[in-house]
Amino acid sequence: MTQRPPAEVGMPLAEVDTPALLIELDAFERNLSRMAQAIAPHPVRLRAHAKTHKCPTIARRQIALGAVGVCCQKVGEAEALVAGGVEDVLVTNEIVGEPKLRRLAALARQARIGVCVDDAENVAALGRAAQAFGAELRVLVEVNVGADRCGVEPGAPALALARRVTQAPGLRFDGLQVYHGSAQHLRSHEERRRAIEAASAKARDTQALLEREGIACPTITGAGTGTFRFEAAGGLYTELQAGSYIFMDADYGKNRGEDGGPVRDFEHSLFVYATVMSHTAPERAVVDAGLKALSVDSGMPLVFGLEGVEYARASDEHGKLVLAPAHSPLRVGQKLRLIPGHCDPTVNLYDWFVCTRNDRVEALWPITARGALL
Amino acid sequence: MTQRPPAEVGMPLAEVDTPALLIELDAFERNLSRMAQAIAPHPVRLRAHAKTHKCPTIARRQIALGAVGVCCQKVGEAEALVAGGVEDVLVTNEIVGEPKLRRLAALARQARIGVCVDDAENVAALGRAAQAFGAELRVLVEVNVGADRCGVEPGAPALALARRVTQAPGLRFDGLQVYHGSAQHLRSHEERRRAIEAASAKARDTQALLEREGIACPTITGAGTGTFRFEAAGGLYTELQAGSYIFMDADYGKNRGEDGGPVRDFEHSLFVYATVMSHTAPERAVVDAGLKALSVDSGMPLVFGLEGVEYARASDEHGKLVLAPAHSPLRVGQKLRLIPGHCDPTVNLYDWFVCTRNDRVEALWPITARGALL
Repeated sequence: MTQRPPAEVGMPLAEVDTPALLIELDAFERNLSRMAQAIAPHPVRLRAHAKTHKCPTIARRQIALGAVGVCCQKVGEAEALVAGGVEDVLVTNEIVGEPKLRRLAALARQARIGVCVDDAENVAALGRAAQAFGAELRVLVEVNVGADRCGVEPGAPALALARRVTQAPGLRFDGLQVYHGSAQHLRSHEERRRAIEAASAKARDTQALLEREGIACPTITGAGTGTFRFEAAGGLYTELQAGSYIFMDADYGKNRGEDGGPVRDFEHSLFVYATVMSHTAPERAVVDAGLKALSVDSGMPLVFGLEGVEYARASDEHGKLVLAPAHSPLRVGQKLRLIPGHCDPTVNLYDWFVCTRNDRVEALWPITARGALL
Repeated sequence: MTQRPPAEVGMPLAEVDTPALLIELDAFERNLSRMAQAIAPHPVRLRAHAKTHKCPTIARRQIALGAVGVCCQKVGEAEALVAGGVEDVLVTNEIVGEPKLRRLAALARQARIGVCVDDAENVAALGRAAQAFGAELRVLVEVNVGADRCGVEPGAPALALARRVTQAPGLRFDGLQVYHGSAQHLRSHEERRRAIEAASAKARDTQALLEREGIACPTITGAGTGTFRFEAAGGLYTELQAGSYIFMDADYGKNRGEDGGPVRDFEHSLFVYATVMSHTAPERAVVDAGLKALSVDSGMPLVFGLEGVEYARASDEHGKLVLAPAHSPLRVGQKLRLIPGHCDPTVNLYDWFVCTRNDRVEALWPITARGALL
């Protein structure tokens, strides 16, 4: 059931079959370096989010540039990362159900594994699983700092759960997961700043409460590509979980910086390569990349480098392009680059990254955690 | 890179790991029979759309119940279907680029293969590929009957292209692809009826023109789950391309019948099985199925069998449920069935169908064309 790669190493970009998921290595490597440089002045380390790329090759590059390890959301992702040589993985998510807890505990015999909790019974089940394997799991209490999704409330509920973790055999309490997901996509700099200020206050108060009660929080972890500069500068967070910075999708491209202009921290380095397969009217053309080649949950992709051509609508296997009046026609067979609206679920549709430099294929990286739902 | 199945045959449903893609076999088999019965009175045959299921096991069942063959959208899907024992596949799409044309022509040595065209140069390239393999490709001219996506205009442009097909060595002109995609999801019976009436008029006139010019159209093919009764009754179409009828998603569930009530032709038989992984406030809970476990392009999934619980928002690996005021709490670890908003791109996220009957796993069917983008 493995899909063949759409390219061979050494091939010119123009010969890559479509749809293909391209990484432009120069831009990608600049993004990695810029993140490392951006956080270097601060007493904080990157724990890059591997849910974005699902690829141990990329995780190892992030670690080589200073990341303390990576994070992910699923046990299956953690397994693929460890199998690919990653030695420190935090599952930034609650893991529920005996089969998954067994796999997580077993994996903690192979690598340093952390996980989040927000439920007392789940803490007990995690402890039993860790004991059964003679493993030690690092456990973070997830605190709801504004996203209203997972996590216990700050203060007393977090303290109560942390106490349970400290008392459970097989578990080591490692601190707080304080990620504010929805803040990443607030468009203005000031909105994002205020959201993280509020989240940080909750995190700080909770940490102080735990420490007054004799429970140290070695790790305070959270942040994403939209807000990491605030958490980096705030002095509270010890780890930053940015993931999308490596690719920059069209949605993150809508965030505005302090001057009201687009945020320019990172470049688009991920593209869906597509072919014009139909062009029967001057005002429209159709490419071979639709809903199964890119995720539209955060909006349509952008057409890269073609002024006046808009990707207007996605159906299962078709992307409808609308051409501005008097735009010169495209050519059936012409290949285009699309900037996906949302990188993470788009990457999950592919088995291979086709990595190019100077318009030539330099590497094929398997996306080994593609489809790792369990 | 193949993902392990989330279940074992014989396992009770409650033990299936999540997220998992379930087929409830009783409902699924009723859907297959109902379609066969619905079209039996008409001089038309089903060519079921395999882009919905991407699974040769299901294709062979459809053929056993009378389907003339199946259709799909990608060469890679056609390859997976032929490898799985399907002997008649129509690619209801334009296929562009030498590598894909070579694969399509080669496949035509293994099975009866059809393909659509809407471009003269593409016809020539198809002919060359067929000749190179000593293969015969069946070719349908796609006509734009209202969707304004692919397809030449009805009348003279269709005639001109059909002529080229008849003149190209290696190609056999097989008729017209006249599918009106957007009509499938028009909500009222009357809107759908009018859309198909208009589409059929264009198809009929074009067929008549071709026949006056000495070009027979043995096949007139199109239709989908939303409109197939109109095309079946119209007497023009020889093949119907319905696909979603086997599963019925939440979006098709919004279509209304002649009486203004919901269309009741088919039942929901496809579910995403999910686990409550967090429930830290009475008004909300979180399941482990988000954007990578279901496609939200046509709306959020429905929560099956739980009154007062709404799937409100999907993020990458989380689905946020909102509970009605005073709803009794869910249980962390509780498993739920979700009806996907849109079945086709949801199926493409999974490697396995977990097939159940009476809440027990009866079969695991590999989705061998999952990710077949090329």
